[in-house]
Formats: sequence, C-alpha cells, structure tokens
Amino acid sequence: MDSSPHHQDTNNIDSSFDNYQDNKEIIVTPWEVSGEIEDRMYIKLIEKFGTQGLSQDLIEKFRKLTGEVHPLIKSQYFFSHRDLDWLLTKYENGDPFYLYTGRGPSGFIHIGHILPWLFTKYLQDKFGSKLLFQFTDDEKFLYNPRATRETISKYTAENILDIIAIGFQPNLTRIIIDTQHINYLYPIATEIAKKITFSTAKAVFGFTNTTNLGMIGFPPIQAAPCFLPSIIEKKPTPVLIPAAIDQDPYWRITRDIAVKLGFYKPAQIHSKFLPSLSRISKMSSSKPETAIFTTDEPEIVEKKVLSSFTGGQATISLQKKLGGNADICPVYAYLRYFFDNEKESLERYIRCKSGNLLCGECKSDLADNTKTFIIDFKRKREKAKDKVKDFMFDEKCLQ
Amino acid sequence: MDSSPHHQDTNNIDSSFDNYQDNKEIIVTPWEVSGEIEDRMYIKLIEKFGTQGLSQDLIEKFRKLTGEVHPLIKSQYFFSHRDLDWLLTKYENGDPFYLYTGRGPSGFIHIGHILPWLFTKYLQDKFGSKLLFQFTDDEKFLYNPRATRETISKYTAENILDIIAIGFQPNLTRIIIDTQHINYLYPIATEIAKKITFSTAKAVFGFTNTTNLGMIGFPPIQAAPCFLPSIIEKKPTPVLIPAAIDQDPYWRITRDIAVKLGFYKPAQIHSKFLPSLSRISKMSSSKPETAIFTTDEPEIVEKKVLSSFTGGQATISLQKKLGGNADICPVYAYLRYFFDNEKESLERYIRCKSGNLLCGECKSDLADNTKTFIIDFKRKREKAKDKVKDFMFDEKCLQ
Repeated sequence: MDSSPHHQDTNNIDSSFDNYQDNKEIIVTPWEVSGEIEDRMYIKLIEKFGTQGLSQDLIEKFRKLTGEVHPLIKSQYFFSHRDLDWLLTKYENGDPFYLYTGRGPSGFIHIGHILPWLFTKYLQDKFGSKLLFQFTDDEKFLYNPRATRETISKYTAENILDIIAIGFQPNLTRIIIDTQHINYLYPIATEIAKKITFSTAKAVFGFTNTTNLGMIGFPPIQAAPCFLPSIIEKKPTPVLIPAAIDQDPYWRITRDIAVKLGFYKPAQIHSKFLPSLSRISKMSSSKPETAIFTTDEPEIVEKKVLSSFTGGQATISLQKKLGGNADICPVYAYLRYFFDNEKESLERYIRCKSGNLLCGECKSDLADNTKTFIIDFKRKREKAKDKVKDFMFDEKCLQ
Repeated sequence: MDSSPHHQDTNNIDSSFDNYQDNKEIIVTPWEVSGEIEDRMYIKLIEKFGTQGLSQDLIEKFRKLTGEVHPLIKSQYFFSHRDLDWLLTKYENGDPFYLYTGRGPSGFIHIGHILPWLFTKYLQDKFGSKLLFQFTDDEKFLYNPRATRETISKYTAENILDIIAIGFQPNLTRIIIDTQHINYLYPIATEIAKKITFSTAKAVFGFTNTTNLGMIGFPPIQAAPCFLPSIIEKKPTPVLIPAAIDQDPYWRITRDIAVKLGFYKPAQIHSKFLPSLSRISKMSSSKPETAIFTTDEPEIVEKKVLSSFTGGQATISLQKKLGGNADICPVYAYLRYFFDNEKESLERYIRCKSGNLLCGECKSDLADNTKTFIIDFKRKREKAKDKVKDFMFDEKCLQ
C-alpha cells in the first residue's frame, strides 16, 4: 500500500481543554462538551487537536467533484479535517472510500444530532460511498452509572429509526450495534488494543484510577470500524469519518496505530456543535427543554422554539436601537444551518444586526420550518420500522 | 436468592508475590509462575490469597457425595478452595452446579495441564455437572508481544482436540472461544467491567502505564462465564471453578462484584502446579524440553523422562548412603499424581528416602507409564477431530 496520510497529528494532548481563554472554561471530550461555545473556540480546537482548517483549495477540490459547495461547508458548520485532501485524491485516482459515523444511544435524537448525518447522506449520494454506522451502546452503558442495559437498548432501537429516516441508501449502508455485532469488531479491536498503552489512553481520554475497566477497554471498539472496510474489501481501503469534533480523540489514537496494522489512517471531517436553545452550548439530550427531539409533537416543537434563548436585546426599543447579536443566537444558527439558503441567511443577519428584525419573526420562521421538518421526519421514522433488518450488518457483509 | 458465600476474600493484595521467604523469590500471577516451587509455598499462598485449605470436614463431605476421596485430593494436588463447602451444601439441597474452567492457548498441551481437567471430568461424572470450557485466545494474543492471531488460532484448534480427548461428556460440555463466542460474553462482561475500577485491577493484576488496553479490558471477559450459567438457567446458579491457583486473582475480583449483579460468587478448588522435568518449577510450554506434550512421539517422551532432573544424589553410592529427596523430585511427583496408587507411592517414597531405590527405576517406571498414557491419549485426540462441532457453544445453549 502507498504510505497514507501526511499531516502530523498532535498527540498526547490533554483533551480536557480547560481555559482556552483565561476567563472561559470549555471542556471538549467524547463524553463532555460544556461551557459557552463561540466560533473562535473552534479555531483554538484546530490548534489544540492538531487538525487542519478547510482551506479554499480543499473546498475547491470538493466543488470539482460534487459540482457545488455544500451549504454546511459554506456556512463553516464543517470546519476542520484530517487528510480529506488525501482521501479526495485517492478517490480521483479510482480508490473509492467508505464513510463511517455513529451514535451513542443515550437518549432520543435531537436535530443537533441530525445535521452531520444529513451531510453524511449527501456524501454517500455524491460519492456512492458505503457507510458503516456504529451504535456504541456499550460505551453509553459503561459511561453512565445510572444507565441500565435495558434503557440503552430501548434508545438504540428508537435511534435506529432516526438513522434510517435520514434516507441512507439501504444497499450501501450497514448498522453495527456494538453489543450485537461485537463478534465482527472484537478480533480487530484486540489488534488495536494491543498497540495502545494505558499511558497513551490516559493522556488522550483523561482516564483515572476510578475509571471502570469497560471505559478503558472501549476505545479500540470505537476504532474497529475504521479498519473493517479494509477487511470487507480485502485491501487497504480509505475511510472518511464525518462527525462532531468532540470525537476526535478516538481517531487520533486510531490514526497512530493504523499504519502499524497495515491500514490507512482514517480521514475525518469535523463539524461544530449545534447550540442548545437555552444558551450557547451544545444541544443536549440530558436537558430536554433545550433540544428539539425527532419524537417531539409539533406543538412541543413550537413551544420550545418560541421560548428559546436568542441574541436579541431586552426590549423592542433597545433591539431597534442597538441591533441583535446573531453571532450568539441559537435561533439564527438553526435557521442558517437547517433552513435558510446563503442569501436568506445573510439578509437575516444584516437585518438583525441593524435592528430591523425582531426575535419574534425569527422564532416564528424557525418554528414553522422545524414543525414541517419534524412532521415529515416522523413520517419517515414510522416507515423505517419495516426496514430495520435491511440495514443490519451481518455475515454477508464479509463475503 | 439466598446470600451466597461466606468467607471474606482478601482483596487488593499485591499478587506479584515476591519473597515469600527472605531467600526465595516466587512470582504467582495469571501470567507468570516462577521460582522454586515447594510444598510450603502453597501454605503461604493460602494466606496471601485469602483462600481456605481443604479441611478434613470438607474432604469428608466430598467423600459422602462421591463415595471416595479422589487421589488428587488425597495427594493434596488440590489443596485450597473458596466456598466449596457452600457449593456442596447447595448441591445436597437440590441445587446443581456448573463447572467452569479454561485454557489459554499459547502452545501445545503438556501433561501438567491435563491433571486439573481429569479432575474436572471426574466432577462432571460424579455430579452430572454441565461444564463451560473457555479458550482465552484473546488474552494470549494480547499478552505476548510476538503472538499473532494466526498462531494463537492454530493452538486453539490443536488444544480443543486435547480437551475433547479428556473425555468430557458432549451433552454436558460446551467450549467457548473468546474471539468466536464474544457475542455471548460481551454483554455480561460490560456489566462486570462497569463495576471494576482501574485502581482495583491495578492492585490485583499489577497493571502499569505500559500495559496495553486489551489486557486491562480482559479480566471481565474471563469473569463472564462465571455468570453465564445463571443466564442460561434463568436463575442464580452455583459455579465451581477447578483450576491452578495462579488464576485466583480473576475470581477474586469476580467474587467482589457477583452479588452486586445478582449472581452467586463462583466457588473454586485450587490445584498446585505440576513441576517441570528440569527443576522444581511449573512445567512450561515455553521450555519444551521440560514438558511432555500430548503431541510428542513416544520416543521423545521416553527421552525427556530419562533426561529429567530428579531428587537423586550425584552417585549411586551416595544415593545408597544418603537416600534420595523425593520431595523435590519431579519424577516422583508425576508418578504420584498420575500413575501410582496411594500405597505404591508411599512405598516408593520410603524406598527412595532410605536409599533402596535408584533414580533409574523411577525414570523407567515413569517413561513406561507416560508412553502408554500418551499413546492412548493421541488415539483419543485423533478421534476428537470428528467431534469438535458437538462441543461448541452456540445459540441453542441459551434456549
């Protein structure tokens, strides 16, 4: 195989990313994203994690292959990568790539989860890529002291419907549930686990003496699907992981050992977090009032949107005088990433900043759009119930 | 369920059991047994590990149930236990128990391995017990930096023939190979793993910063078959583990968390190690000249026995004058545990100590007996090739 990815990863950094500025405490690990998230934080994350920003050259390369620049790239929702340039060059030279992403089934799906998957579907459609979608039900059980296997299993079954509702192609997509498909992951996971010392894992994930053995043993299970495509295809096969940047520590250690095991390093494209409706932080299943779930009834969706935090001023007269702060406004962010096109979003931004737009109008726009979206999504989710079996990974995938 | 086992286990002890006497360095962990092993060491191990010696009362209880005292108990080859008394009382009260033992397939089987399995078969026959036999192929791959999955897989296939050749009852015995049957072990292993902190595992197994993640994640996989019988039988089910005492750390942490998970603590009966042919240490696959393998040709067996270390004096005249040292003699130990009956063994001991027996005679006796045994065992091993499928754990075991 040709030598894969070029960029040096920054390793052994402390991913409990405290104090990126003296007065702001931000934590970004696979298990916790907290603090006030602003756009400039992401620039710091690129430096800290040792990833690459999406350069104009790379975006242009993307455009040549897809015929356009996807709105989520244009809006910088996807803002960082590892070896995406290498992967696209491989593709141009006739080497197709797999997509790999996943879900930790700790609750219902909210629309903050959906965005990277919509982009993943777009990539699947444009590049004809096979997709492995992993449910880390083991990790979610191991991480939360209160979680039972039954609860996690219930959310897994619910979340699968959302994944199918996204519209992934059944002939190109396979779902892996860790506890159900562990026999496909475990042999390669032991190869990975053998190459990673506790000391490395401690530095990357912040494990301590009180961490349970399951959490310490877990990273190789999440790394395994990076290499499964090469086993399926019986040759080293490029893999692209579209996911929020909090998952980067997993891929960093996976990349470290990939070449030693005879595989390509997995390439990545990193998204931001979609803000919650309460303040500028990650939308979270653990605070249900701040997130719009795909299982919410339309009137609940409307109620949540209408009581959302915004970047608006305290009064209408102040808003008209000073203008709103779209940069920290979750309502603006949702409209921008989900519903407005580029021109609409820019106009909304200008009208807000200049005091010519009141929060009520944006909330109303978002409520209408989201209700329509959720009603449609729930319909697809219902239909998904008959399709679950078609999407499951099985023995045939290896033949 | 009634509250299970009574004895307090000694926990968090350092199992790298150095310097049990000032001038002797002995290491007993699941991965290493080294040093000169003498009988008095085992008394120390009982104290250190917090297990119980086999009392006369317990041996009598055993005798009542089996109609005899098995030679390996009489000879104190099995010398220690945890909760065997409790398990036998449960049995008397109509609660049958499972047997669970295993093999780390890192090489060919030598006759030192076979002894606990012959006793396990005896227990199966006497108590009608179902047996789970685990092959820890994952552990052996993870532990040895030079091991490949292919090599371990080859030894697994070879060793299975030996297990079947032991004569376990096919309708009561199921073999679990970790990497092949992980889907049955993993869900319960995550429950176990969630309850064990790194700090506990570090104290029990001596894990360090350089230990790989696979080894740290492994103990719950070895613990899982302790609880599988309760899952199979759909009620808490007693389990007895006959195994050499070096495996005790696994059961110590398993017992710690059993009740929290709603299972009985696994009971154990601990054997000594069978000495090697070179000095008083454990027979080892990694020193092939010191071990008699079930795959050895008869002439090799004879050659190994005839060149064995003994407890004899340097010359015939010294031997006649001073007598031999049967207590440290591996030839004597093999004859005692494998071939001599109690009376023969005692006579041999007396003749040796009094200078009336020369090493040549013992070696000749052992060579003849071992050749006969191995020739017979090889025949059974050949026949086993057609039976492998009958012994494999599968979905039906859970129905």
